[in-house]
Amino acid sequence: MGNTNTALRVGLAGVTGYAGLEAWRLLAAHPNFEVVRLAAGRGAGRTLSDSWPALMAHRSMPIQSLTVDFARELDVLVLALPHGISAPYLATLEAEGLLERIRVVDLGADFRLQDPEIYARAYGDRHPCPDLLDRAVYGLTEFNRAAVAQAPLVANPGCYPTATALGARVLLDAGCAGPVHSSCVSGVSGAGRKAGPRTLYCEVQDSVVAYGVGGQHRHVPEMEQELACPVVFTPHLVPAIRGMLATVTMAAPGSLTTEQLQATASALYEHEPLVMLRDEPPATRDVRGTGLAHFHVCLDTSRGVAQAFVAIDNLGKGAAAQAVQNLNVMFGFEETLAIPTIPLLP
Amino acid sequence: MGNTNTALRVGLAGVTGYAGLEAWRLLAAHPNFEVVRLAAGRGAGRTLSDSWPALMAHRSMPIQSLTVDFARELDVLVLALPHGISAPYLATLEAEGLLERIRVVDLGADFRLQDPEIYARAYGDRHPCPDLLDRAVYGLTEFNRAAVAQAPLVANPGCYPTATALGARVLLDAGCAGPVHSSCVSGVSGAGRKAGPRTLYCEVQDSVVAYGVGGQHRHVPEMEQELACPVVFTPHLVPAIRGMLATVTMAAPGSLTTEQLQATASALYEHEPLVMLRDEPPATRDVRGTGLAHFHVCLDTSRGVAQAFVAIDNLGKGAAAQAVQNLNVMFGFEETLAIPTIPLLP
Amino acid sequence: MGNTNTALRVGLAGVTGYAGLEAWRLLAAHPNFEVVRLAAGRGAGRTLSDSWPALMAHRSMPIQSLTVDFARELDVLVLALPHGISAPYLATLEAEGLLERIRVVDLGADFRLQDPEIYARAYGDRHPCPDLLDRAVYGLTEFNRAAVAQAPLVANPGCYPTATALGARVLLDAGCAGPVHSSCVSGVSGAGRKAGPRTLYCEVQDSVVAYGVGGQHRHVPEMEQELACPVVFTPHLVPAIRGMLATVTMAAPGSLTTEQLQATASALYEHEPLVMLRDEPPATRDVRGTGLAHFHVCLDTSRGVAQAFVAIDNLGKGAAAQAVQNLNVMFGFEETLAIPTIPLLP
Amino acid sequence: MGNTNTALRVGLAGVTGYAGLEAWRLLAAHPNFEVVRLAAGRGAGRTLSDSWPALMAHRSMPIQSLTVDFARELDVLVLALPHGISAPYLATLEAEGLLERIRVVDLGADFRLQDPEIYARAYGDRHPCPDLLDRAVYGLTEFNRAAVAQAPLVANPGCYPTATALGARVLLDAGCAGPVHSSCVSGVSGAGRKAGPRTLYCEVQDSVVAYGVGGQHRHVPEMEQELACPVVFTPHLVPAIRGMLATVTMAAPGSLTTEQLQATASALYEHEPLVMLRDEPPATRDVRGTGLAHFHVCLDTSRGVAQAFVAIDNLGKGAAAQAVQNLNVMFGFEETLAIPTIPLLP
Repeated sequence: MGNTNTALRVGLAGVTGYAGLEAWRLLAAHPNFEVVRLAAGRGAGRTLSDSWPALMAHRSMPIQSLTVDFARELDVLVLALPHGISAPYLATLEAEGLLERIRVVDLGADFRLQDPEIYARAYGDRHPCPDLLDRAVYGLTEFNRAAVAQAPLVANPGCYPTATALGARVLLDAGCAGPVHSSCVSGVSGAGRKAGPRTLYCEVQDSVVAYGVGGQHRHVPEMEQELACPVVFTPHLVPAIRGMLATVTMAAPGSLTTEQLQATASALYEHEPLVMLRDEPPATRDVRGTGLAHFHVCLDTSRGVAQAFVAIDNLGKGAAAQAVQNLNVMFGFEETLAIPTIPLLP
Repeated sequence: MGNTNTALRVGLAGVTGYAGLEAWRLLAAHPNFEVVRLAAGRGAGRTLSDSWPALMAHRSMPIQSLTVDFARELDVLVLALPHGISAPYLATLEAEGLLERIRVVDLGADFRLQDPEIYARAYGDRHPCPDLLDRAVYGLTEFNRAAVAQAPLVANPGCYPTATALGARVLLDAGCAGPVHSSCVSGVSGAGRKAGPRTLYCEVQDSVVAYGVGGQHRHVPEMEQELACPVVFTPHLVPAIRGMLATVTMAAPGSLTTEQLQATASALYEHEPLVMLRDEPPATRDVRGTGLAHFHVCLDTSRGVAQAFVAIDNLGKGAAAQAVQNLNVMFGFEETLAIPTIPLLP
Repeated sequence: MGNTNTALRVGLAGVTGYAGLEAWRLLAAHPNFEVVRLAAGRGAGRTLSDSWPALMAHRSMPIQSLTVDFARELDVLVLALPHGISAPYLATLEAEGLLERIRVVDLGADFRLQDPEIYARAYGDRHPCPDLLDRAVYGLTEFNRAAVAQAPLVANPGCYPTATALGARVLLDAGCAGPVHSSCVSGVSGAGRKAGPRTLYCEVQDSVVAYGVGGQHRHVPEMEQELACPVVFTPHLVPAIRGMLATVTMAAPGSLTTEQLQATASALYEHEPLVMLRDEPPATRDVRGTGLAHFHVCLDTSRGVAQAFVAIDNLGKGAAAQAVQNLNVMFGFEETLAIPTIPLLP
Repeated sequence: MGNTNTALRVGLAGVTGYAGLEAWRLLAAHPNFEVVRLAAGRGAGRTLSDSWPALMAHRSMPIQSLTVDFARELDVLVLALPHGISAPYLATLEAEGLLERIRVVDLGADFRLQDPEIYARAYGDRHPCPDLLDRAVYGLTEFNRAAVAQAPLVANPGCYPTATALGARVLLDAGCAGPVHSSCVSGVSGAGRKAGPRTLYCEVQDSVVAYGVGGQHRHVPEMEQELACPVVFTPHLVPAIRGMLATVTMAAPGSLTTEQLQATASALYEHEPLVMLRDEPPATRDVRGTGLAHFHVCLDTSRGVAQAFVAIDNLGKGAAAQAVQNLNVMFGFEETLAIPTIPLLP
């Protein structure tokens, strides 16, 4: 797609998964980055089009194993891997002295939680490389832009924490009191590409289910870390490929007005290039295939609550598009460069 | 379906809509009721199979207008009509002296709210016949069984109030404090069969949206009337034909234990024939085509909340199956007679 | 469901799969059969509700292995198993002298093809028990009713052959010439419940694909055996859970009129209780959850072709409902007993 | 999107419909065209984001009526309107002398059929402006590239004819004999955005239906004109938003080999930038959101037929992307400029 000779050299790991493929799609249209190497766990030894027959025009690029050699002479590593793989891999690169010159965006969970004990509780295993944790910056771009710009390693947020935090931040700024109630729905692609009964068409279609209830979902500690507030989080799986909607509710101060609430939202987001303020609740289709977050707030004074509604594409702003947004910030490019902002409608 | 000569004679109005058709489907298998007349607003002058070509084997039954003659010699009226139609129709029958011998189940909204002023605020028009309101019993069967048995007129609950009240009742009984947070998702059939951009396939598919936010949905007063508690209600539309899931959250007393919460649920529901207690959150597919409510509770002591999850078929327990359940109670039949309890899987 | 003490004792194997579960659902409502034992390959040692959490009210029935003991004291065996399992199992029962008193309906492929060499080519392995083949009657009920009534073993047809043969038979009777062009679409449940990339929600949704092209689908020999005519068969997978539509096209004699074509269809089917003649092409939703086939024919004299359109539920008339239809015929019950004829709409 | 000052000025009519919006989406990313005016029938007087709330960031562009003034000072007109509107509008522009300097791509049906009598039969009305017909070039780009390059007016093909002709052309070139059997499936967006019972979510989902059977679909004359061969065309509606798959079958000469058939396909398409030759049948998801056609051929020598499988996005290569492809050819730009070739996966 017209990458220049001087484009930054990217190694992309996890391209056989949904978030990894979305990163590949976005980077393929980026003028300043060029994906020069692909890696994957399961898919190693095959090619991109073996894994994605639709991409047969691109069949020549092989998928490698995630070895030390994979990282040599790269400028950028983009990792879209299951948790527990990125951290030891980066530790190996560190031991080889390769991390000095490579900047990393990790779409997985290894570097999102600053406290390794919280990681251990959430992921059921001790953190593989706590030494690297202090290099990582949590990459919810709108809130950490300056730190992301300098970071050697960006921990790209989870999809649920992105949507929830974008919503709750406005409510907290408007003076609402905790806990944060976050009732979210996610399309099925959030569960990944691994075959299992939970994601079979005939088990998912025409159905909705809550899961990970009772505070047990792994994204809860990430939300509570970023919001510094208890979060009652209830995820639901819905029959859609992409899309995530966070309905965030908090107790509102009696003095809060709709105007103040909207002014708070505007103060936070009206200059944000990828957050769109809407005057009605957004649909997830409104952001499909984009890096946008659509945002709406409302106040129910009779019942003393304020609500924020945040629609993102779980693979877009919830994963790969936010990774590209972070890459743009890290390298000083225009923040929205190569990030789609027109959804695929219908 | 083998209705006996002594079956009760039912007139069914609204058979061109989804809830009305579901009532027809269930009554067609009922040994003690026989639908002898059909009516509808739009479909009058046509036949059942004109409106539902799939039912061409049943094409001979005409669809009539909803006149006084329609009600003559009926034992039962089942009304599945937009709000504002049932009440004046019943007033006309009353004036003709026909209501004495006909028992009525109204699946619409006209008789659900006891206070006509609340009706006026919710539906934007004054109540057409407040005089009839005190004859009506609110037909959430599990909570009003005795009154339903005697009622001349049963106001069949809305789908959202059914699911929300079944969930919140347990939490309230367990000592939880308001407000009730009810975050619900509904399949598209809840929006009815009228063509409009909101329910077109290409606008609904692969998308989720919240609507009626800020306490404005018409079902809120109905919930608050039945629960005597403020309800923060957020409905969402999801790409499914049938199905409704209520996620109900309340602040829990610090002393509440999971065992107590589950015992409260069991005390309320373990002898209920149409409420199934589940040990994990239910999916809406689990009740598709049935009159069941599947129910799960959990406690998050870290964040001080209890949650109930209620899955119903919005056209089943949320409409037509609850209407048949009420009819069974009204006439002293076995409560589950002709109510499907095995879902269509997959 | 009110089975009498004198109900016939059924052992059902394969209840963890979609067709087996549908057989269980239909038999659960049958007054003359009672499923007294369940078996399955993968699910053995668990219970029905372990495999189908929605059925938790029925959790007490264990799923056994398919041993000789499983068959003892049964009147009927219903087998819904992958090909290659039924035949050796029945051979074992035969060796034990158990087949004398048990009548069998096999929903799998082992006994559909009369010629074991054709079986070997289609299924890539020699037939496990050719000796049993001459006991089997091909159970496309409408065409083989008399033989089914006497059969010790009924080979229930595949879904594609059922739909294609119902359509092509009319065209052949009307004098059309081969080959039969059968372009079919199937819902995803036809691929079974085994997890695999082909049936993941995110790979199937919003997509259509042809497969098994070039005459390679295993159902082609079955069609050609029954129709005695070459069949150009092209199956397509569509994003629907249930449903199968066969569009069958043949060259029509120049003298054929629409009236003659429709008269031919009427002669074959107007007295068939489960085949409905439609005056427009049927949709698969029209038969969802039922045992019906909806049928339409048309003639294009300008291009010299006649077409038949057949909609069935692939798990209904295409599998379990036809199995029950055959059981009813085998035991002399009313042919439609316990077979749903009202679809789940919407 | 970085349009230069010298970009060609485009007026786009029909932007409230699906094909029109897709044209807007593609042109918004095109460096050499700029959409400077929008028109629509129903939407006139509103803005783009009134019609498409998702596009609220673009709310400032008004939607005008399709007047003579609309066309003044434009370089290009792109019309995506129901049939019968484009032709009289262009006649008016012609009378005003405006057509001299404006080049037109019409995505509607008015100029696809060269014979006005065939138009009259297909569309049930006489052609509004037969005088303009000889200016129009049928824009199936791969077959008419040279003529498109010179054309003042390009009749953009219908989606079904595009897919069918791309497939049948190979079979005809390989020596296959007619008639062409084209069994096609289409996503629901092909039916347009007008609300109607046929396109409601609850009527379309989980269902498949054939329609326009018996040679009556309006696209048949267009196919037969381009292929000079009878076409037995059977369209089916499937529950997908976008996507079209044509399964094209013809009688093959006995001497034809698979190698010859594939060589014929390669000769026609291997240098085509938007036609991808696949070694297995393509899925419609493989081309979603792109301007590509994915193509596969196979031969069934036992039954004497050859088949071509063509997957397109009905709004892409089947409508708007082919319109942009034609615009690129008309103005001498790189043919694939601004045409997406990476699908939205998953």
